[in-house]
Amino acid sequence: KMLGRVLCTVLFVGALQSLAKASQGHISVVLLGATGDLAKKYLWQGLFQLYMDQVSSGHSFTFHGAALTALEPGQRLMFDVLKKLSCPLDEAPNRCAVLKDQFLKLSQYHQLSTAENYTALSREIEALLRQEGLKEAGRIFYFSVPPFAYTEIARHINSSCRPAPGAWLRVVLEKPFGHDLQSAQQLAAELTGFFREEEMYRVDHYLGKQAVAHILPFRDQNRQFLDPIWNRHHVERVEIVLKETVDAKGRTSFYEQYGVIRDVLQNHLTEALMFLLMELPANVSRAEEVLKHKLQSFQSLWGLEKNSAVLGQYQAYASQVREELQQAQDYVSTTPTFAGVLIHSDSLRWEGVPFLLTSGKALDERVGYARVLFKNRAYCTQSETLRDAGHSQCKAKQIIFYFGHGALNTPAVLVSRNLFRPVMPKDSWKEATAQSDLHVFGQPLSDYYVYSPVKERDAYSVLISNIYHGRKDFFITTENLLASWGFWTPLLDSISHQPLRLYPGGVENQHLLDFEMVSGGLAFTLAEPAELLNPPRQMPSDYKAIQSKYRQSPLVSAWSEDLISQLASDMEEAAVRSVARSGQFHLALSGGSSPVILFQRLARHHYAFPWKHTHIWLVDERCVPLTDSESNFFSLHSHLLQSVRVPYFNIHPMPVHLNWRLCVEEDRGTEMYAKDITALVANASFDLVLLGVGTDGHTASLFPRSENGLEGAPTVVLTESPVKPHQRMSLSLPLINKARQVFVLVLGKGKHDITTLLSRVGHEPRKWPISGVSPSSGQLVWYVDYEALLG
Amino acid sequence: KMLGRVLCTVLFVGALQSLAKASQGHISVVLLGATGDLAKKYLWQGLFQLYMDQVSSGHSFTFHGAALTALEPGQRLMFDVLKKLSCPLDEAPNRCAVLKDQFLKLSQYHQLSTAENYTALSREIEALLRQEGLKEAGRIFYFSVPPFAYTEIARHINSSCRPAPGAWLRVVLEKPFGHDLQSAQQLAAELTGFFREEEMYRVDHYLGKQAVAHILPFRDQNRQFLDPIWNRHHVERVEIVLKETVDAKGRTSFYEQYGVIRDVLQNHLTEALMFLLMELPANVSRAEEVLKHKLQSFQSLWGLEKNSAVLGQYQAYASQVREELQQAQDYVSTTPTFAGVLIHSDSLRWEGVPFLLTSGKALDERVGYARVLFKNRAYCTQSETLRDAGHSQCKAKQIIFYFGHGALNTPAVLVSRNLFRPVMPKDSWKEATAQSDLHVFGQPLSDYYVYSPVKERDAYSVLISNIYHGRKDFFITTENLLASWGFWTPLLDSISHQPLRLYPGGVENQHLLDFEMVSGGLAFTLAEPAELLNPPRQMPSDYKAIQSKYRQSPLVSAWSEDLISQLASDMEEAAVRSVARSGQFHLALSGGSSPVILFQRLARHHYAFPWKHTHIWLVDERCVPLTDSESNFFSLHSHLLQSVRVPYFNIHPMPVHLNWRLCVEEDRGTEMYAKDITALVANASFDLVLLGVGTDGHTASLFPRSENGLEGAPTVVLTESPVKPHQRMSLSLPLINKARQVFVLVLGKGKHDITTLLSRVGHEPRKWPISGVSPSSGQLVWYVDYEALLG
Repeated sequence: KMLGRVLCTVLFVGALQSLAKASQGHISVVLLGATGDLAKKYLWQGLFQLYMDQVSSGHSFTFHGAALTALEPGQRLMFDVLKKLSCPLDEAPNRCAVLKDQFLKLSQYHQLSTAENYTALSREIEALLRQEGLKEAGRIFYFSVPPFAYTEIARHINSSCRPAPGAWLRVVLEKPFGHDLQSAQQLAAELTGFFREEEMYRVDHYLGKQAVAHILPFRDQNRQFLDPIWNRHHVERVEIVLKETVDAKGRTSFYEQYGVIRDVLQNHLTEALMFLLMELPANVSRAEEVLKHKLQSFQSLWGLEKNSAVLGQYQAYASQVREELQQAQDYVSTTPTFAGVLIHSDSLRWEGVPFLLTSGKALDERVGYARVLFKNRAYCTQSETLRDAGHSQCKAKQIIFYFGHGALNTPAVLVSRNLFRPVMPKDSWKEATAQSDLHVFGQPLSDYYVYSPVKERDAYSVLISNIYHGRKDFFITTENLLASWGFWTPLLDSISHQPLRLYPGGVENQHLLDFEMVSGGLAFTLAEPAELLNPPRQMPSDYKAIQSKYRQSPLVSAWSEDLISQLASDMEEAAVRSVARSGQFHLALSGGSSPVILFQRLARHHYAFPWKHTHIWLVDERCVPLTDSESNFFSLHSHLLQSVRVPYFNIHPMPVHLNWRLCVEEDRGTEMYAKDITALVANASFDLVLLGVGTDGHTASLFPRSENGLEGAPTVVLTESPVKPHQRMSLSLPLINKARQVFVLVLGKGKHDITTLLSRVGHEPRKWPISGVSPSSGQLVWYVDYEALLG
Repeated sequence: KMLGRVLCTVLFVGALQSLAKASQGHISVVLLGATGDLAKKYLWQGLFQLYMDQVSSGHSFTFHGAALTALEPGQRLMFDVLKKLSCPLDEAPNRCAVLKDQFLKLSQYHQLSTAENYTALSREIEALLRQEGLKEAGRIFYFSVPPFAYTEIARHINSSCRPAPGAWLRVVLEKPFGHDLQSAQQLAAELTGFFREEEMYRVDHYLGKQAVAHILPFRDQNRQFLDPIWNRHHVERVEIVLKETVDAKGRTSFYEQYGVIRDVLQNHLTEALMFLLMELPANVSRAEEVLKHKLQSFQSLWGLEKNSAVLGQYQAYASQVREELQQAQDYVSTTPTFAGVLIHSDSLRWEGVPFLLTSGKALDERVGYARVLFKNRAYCTQSETLRDAGHSQCKAKQIIFYFGHGALNTPAVLVSRNLFRPVMPKDSWKEATAQSDLHVFGQPLSDYYVYSPVKERDAYSVLISNIYHGRKDFFITTENLLASWGFWTPLLDSISHQPLRLYPGGVENQHLLDFEMVSGGLAFTLAEPAELLNPPRQMPSDYKAIQSKYRQSPLVSAWSEDLISQLASDMEEAAVRSVARSGQFHLALSGGSSPVILFQRLARHHYAFPWKHTHIWLVDERCVPLTDSESNFFSLHSHLLQSVRVPYFNIHPMPVHLNWRLCVEEDRGTEMYAKDITALVANASFDLVLLGVGTDGHTASLFPRSENGLEGAPTVVLTESPVKPHQRMSLSLPLINKARQVFVLVLGKGKHDITTLLSRVGHEPRKWPISGVSPSSGQLVWYVDYEALLG
């Protein structure tokens, strides 16, 4: 009945929508949380815009606001919002007024709380379709509700509100999508129980921001200019920044659980990062291609560590939290409101280029941008005072995607004039010609080609239009979401005890939040005067390794990250000493998971390590091909060798794979390795052997009660592991004990029991092979982290 | 008699020199070319300064000016110069006047042209010594004469003018020391016939410039600050610059033979470069240590190529040359008067940091400096308009050794205030405190700590004092000189046909001489409008490879450098295509010298090469250990593999060294290699095989009339080479002919005969194995340079 009236009105208005076109089918839009803040502020306006844009597309529409509120008050609340919908400036006022009237008539409020409510809604839609003789095109459900409500609503939609067969379902989800990898996985698993991947549209409203959405098209349309320079040889650094002046007041109940990294970096800034970082797909609007390249880019990122970030909290935050969350006066919040994070990719394109992500509340200005700063590769022979500045190649070269606000107060794309004149789509971006004496990013605005949108569009309008068009490339797929959480979660975990720098807020922050890249990580530039907010947790000592004794040998202990960093430094020192003494350094390394972070640390922080003079040997190996991901050598190669310059001849994998078969005795791999050691290592005495310990007390691939390798000659042996792959090759204990230095690394709670046990037992290698490690004339040092030591 | 008088005078003057001190011995200084320009301008003044400084050192002195001029006119000319010697400002005028009087009395003119003259001089000195009862300490001979006179003079000194046994001889030589490696070697060999290395003091007056001489002490005294930042991770670039406003007018007879690179870059700027580049010796004033580190630094430099330099000539130069050298109107000079050169070191410290050396005549200003610009590693969170600029870590950070002239008009050391406050020796350098609104290197002078010498000293005074003190670290040893010529000569050779950019001179040059780093080399920034001066030599085509046919297969021909660059690009294209098709690229490479430049080009210019997916195989190998410098693999490793990231598992050296013995048949290395190929390369068909050709028509290690490998199965064979090392391993012709693509690279005049012969013969692999290369279903392409093709 209602729709009948509407169609008449439409015909009356003129050629806006013909019945013929309407034959493309009907779309029902259901806005869940129809009277909430987001709906009021953006979503209804976005839906109205969609209606204005698509009224003559051939689709017919109905709009269904829904909430838990009862029918009458809900209706009233909703129509109060709808009445305030505004007409865009570029729309004829008459046409807009008529369309608004239609839009209101096409909109209805529903109370949706019980299963029955959902069934009723679905019946209503079906009745309407029958009544008007319309084919159903699809249904859009927009979740503007808190995440705890997701599963329940999803269940109802799936069981009672799916459209007719042949029509599509699109559910639109708003963040937060979990607060770490595990919770995101859980939520995703639940949703996947109700919806197919292609039915889900996860919103990151940054993807609707015009300057963000234009990054990929810009890269695509300017391939000719960017191809030669969009790489580590030309790009100096990339900054992705979202600064806010507001603070979290009034929102602390949300914010206290999330903090700036979950709120802004994990989603918005990461998406912008990916657009800059990813290899350009052949077709930038094909969602699958974009997704594939995006996931590859996530793969290329270095894992974040504690020192990858600097963190701050504005001074008033603590009292706001105490007040709003009714916490006691001694409650200390460890939620960061400011973060700077350094990200590295090890792709050939970006290796070594720093990507700096920064966001914070209570800063000096509101602005968002992604800035690509190019290296100055020019030398200007003329002295600066005599140069014609206008043409100088010595000026900074940059490309800036300006998300909005700030000095420009509009989304924009800026390209330094000494770089190139970009190709921009004329229908959507216009060149700014107005003269201005603004300085942005260190240069006058006149140094740039500046483009701004022909029509500035709100992010939600853009996204709602993209939902309608099924443009999934504007939304976050499950894989994308989990890749992002997978990337951020280790940092979130490792910084939970990190001290925060307190800052006053606004312009007074001055240089307090400036930070610098130092030895692979970030640190605030002003080291001392700032007030630190220390988390309340008690620790033996946060930043100093404990030196003591364990099994009569020196013990170094600390939290794992500090321990690894100490071990890496000690290894470098040993290497430098050895090279100074003998011209070479023979290092035997163990497999397993513990050394992986050590390898990464050595690769990324120890540039002065004398790799050129280092020989790399394996302590033990699994009988698998070297290229197998289970191979110790493969792990060593991936995490260390491929990043440093050890000469090919100095790398000595164990010969477990000879004549295209694995650890066959007659191939005499153990003899070959022993022979190599004898030939190259003076007195077969390694300069340093790095060992680990298993929960059963095994070390190298020497297991309890092993027939080989626990005693006898200093040699190389084949052994049997209780776990797969069973066959192993290993240095024997007597060979290990010939070393000048042996370092044993023990990490994690899982090793607490064996660590405790070993502290009490004597030399019993047949029971616990590690207890037989006792260099005959060398030094043994234990590196045991607090978790292994203290449980 | 004369000296007696002098000693009396000295005693009369007071405690300036006691006889007791004089017992340290007598020094005779002989200045050859005593009435020449350099002597007039600097040397006599320097000798006078030496006398003033050392008169009370215990040594007594006589000064002997010498020239070819006859005694009387020579005497007159010389004493005209001596009378004009000036007193330094910091010397008491009375004392100076007395000392000048003494100096004149101690100075004598000698005509030195025949052997007898030299004998006479020596006798005179001996007589004087006897007469005064003085022990001889040593003799200094200062060669201020043209280089063609060196050998003759050196012979006379050596045979007739050496000091008494126990006393030292120091001969001081002025540049030019040759004009390329060969001539420098020849000159050095001649001099070495007359003098021991420790007797020769080769002057580079830049080493006497205070700011240059202070580079090493500065690095030494500021180790604590510089240690962490003096490396590729912190240094953005280094510029070493000597700009002149004067042109070569009046000196073209010298300049036309040398040009700016020989005149300034090979010596002065290279020495400054070495001080910045070298690993810091434990003791920076020990000449042997400095030399050792300097030579190591030379070793670390990448070879210069044609595109390492940009070259120019000021417009008036040609007419000046025609006029001064009486050349015809159509005479074209190809001597550069401006050069910018890009230098790279592959030391771990400096890898990837550009060192830019620039010098030219007729430029806009006179200035010299070495500037170390550090990377900006900071992010300043506060917006630039609200920053307190004074403390910003986002400002440029630099250290500048300012040689003199220019805006500062004094030698100076500048260190950015946001870097560190340097340690400077208070007795010789003072902090400049005067406020100034000067801008230097993009920043106000107030952004720097600025130090200038307490006493500004002329370079020659400094050097003469250092000759007296035997400070050999201030002079150029033979090894150092030859290392420098060895470094520069290939560039000088390769640019002799290089077009020069003409520039008007002075401020009008504007941006004409600005240059940029592009794909591993340099290019002028303004590409087109400039007038090029093309050398007159006729070439088939300078910049385009010729495409034609050779032995019925495609032929690519060009000058060798362009040919290599084309070949490298074609290889990358083949690799990319193959990876796109099959996910991998199997590349088999040959040994020998021709591929070395190819390897270097691939390593340095082809960042997009899919190394990660490339398998490297050897076409042939010599039966030597892989670490032997004769090994093909070793050369491949040094020039390519160590610089790119081919995974360890994808590198397949030939197994010539098994069980610690070489190419023993029963070790079955050939079978192993063939098995590896079969296992990894689909259909044993390499994607690309790169071959060379020997003058005897051999290719791979398949020699004429070889018993193995010329026919039969596609396999790996042991062969015999007519030259050492005789034993070889090689792919067989049938295996090579299974490849998808075969590229044959032929370079140099030496290959002209075989190239010509091969163009005429058919398929005769037993006579000329290369003629048997004929891929059964693949493509063969010949890359032959003009020298091989045209002779």
